[in-house]
Amino acid sequence: MSFFSKIFHPSSYAPSAPSLPYSYDQQGQTYSTTSYPGNYSHQQQQQSYYGQGTSGGGGGYSYGHSGFPPGTSPDVIRSFEMVDRDRSGFIDENELQQALSSGYQRFHIKTVRLLMFLFKNPHDSRRLGPKEFAALWSCLGQWRGIYERYDRDRSGKIDLLELRDALYGIGLATPSSVLQVLISKYDDGSGRKIELNFDSFVECGVILKGLTEKFKEKDKGYTGTASFDYDEFMSMVIPFLVSYD
Amino acid sequence: MSFFSKIFHPSSYAPSAPSLPYSYDQQGQTYSTTSYPGNYSHQQQQQSYYGQGTSGGGGGYSYGHSGFPPGTSPDVIRSFEMVDRDRSGFIDENELQQALSSGYQRFHIKTVRLLMFLFKNPHDSRRLGPKEFAALWSCLGQWRGIYERYDRDRSGKIDLLELRDALYGIGLATPSSVLQVLISKYDDGSGRKIELNFDSFVECGVILKGLTEKFKEKDKGYTGTASFDYDEFMSMVIPFLVSYD
Repeated sequence: MSFFSKIFHPSSYAPSAPSLPYSYDQQGQTYSTTSYPGNYSHQQQQQSYYGQGTSGGGGGYSYGHSGFPPGTSPDVIRSFEMVDRDRSGFIDENELQQALSSGYQRFHIKTVRLLMFLFKNPHDSRRLGPKEFAALWSCLGQWRGIYERYDRDRSGKIDLLELRDALYGIGLATPSSVLQVLISKYDDGSGRKIELNFDSFVECGVILKGLTEKFKEKDKGYTGTASFDYDEFMSMVIPFLVSYD
Repeated sequence: MSFFSKIFHPSSYAPSAPSLPYSYDQQGQTYSTTSYPGNYSHQQQQQSYYGQGTSGGGGGYSYGHSGFPPGTSPDVIRSFEMVDRDRSGFIDENELQQALSSGYQRFHIKTVRLLMFLFKNPHDSRRLGPKEFAALWSCLGQWRGIYERYDRDRSGKIDLLELRDALYGIGLATPSSVLQVLISKYDDGSGRKIELNFDSFVECGVILKGLTEKFKEKDKGYTGTASFDYDEFMSMVIPFLVSYD
């Protein structure tokens, strides 16, 4: 069992749609997770980012730990202190990877880096401070809940149909042709059915969710169609595409 | 010196804009490399995909080798035979990586996989046949030419300004904010100036060029603005994700 599983008890969070953090939103609007797109949506849900923690039990209260937003759950603060092994007050990619890996399954560094990039502190792009960590940890807790809920055959992995259902469950009606292409990127060439570990599931989810949010910002009327100028288009897509060396 | 450098003599190809292959285009249209977008373009160039080989000297002629398109340069056929180490008649990712790596510098497997994905044979997504290889090899030859032309300080690497100029040289006026984000993904955290090896340069180039081509397909009038429905948007972006475990 990974540190992550130990920290996040499956029953302690609702499988609602995880949002990217405030800091990623270039327009400075807090993300909400209203289902998208209009034509394909099947449910509506609203959730402000800091409005719902992932803590088990009593919910958030102000803890006084320097750097955490008011109302951060003590569970998240405790997690931060455990993940921050060198007591630097910041989480680097190695600390995060270690926290998310279990003895038998390493959380892929490219997913760690994608997460760190999307949740990064504007002043220090290589490390997460308490605020960024709280946002990321909450988001990951929600993805963990979704992952466990939709892994119906308890295989510990998510296949194409489970992925489709999981995304649908959080309001993303991703075209099946897109899912096919996406999941084919995880084909190891063995000929076996493609199944995603938690890290790949998070990678897929964060990318699909993030791109959908970006599209939605340009389709305020929920028509299912949006216009972009070239610079906007490139600016919204590129952050999701390239992984580090 | 890598096999690639040995095969492709720098002076043997024009640094024109490399296109993705016919097979990648979902609308079934041959890509041309007309500069884009309208508002930002500074040059116009047209090149049909198979119209211009990368061969040195005499240009293409029919060779009779099974599977190669008519007019394939004998240089490309010879390259195929050298890259296809196991004589299977197909190129797998290991063979391609080996061909593109030199003794002191390994061509990153994620870039190999992105290229194989974009140039893949619809019947066998893990290996390239002669036709796919010819298309990929021609494209890589053009990127090599651009890389060497714009590495003005002969450092063997491309920095942000050289990347900007190289892209501009092939008709891509990429916003500098996009380039900043893109190149930041290659930051190794050392604090040194970020510079791209050939593999990272190809990764950036293929993604930027490919997305621009996709955008252009939806902006036939070269207005600099395009409309997408949600499915189209996701379908055009997801293939450029670099993934694989």
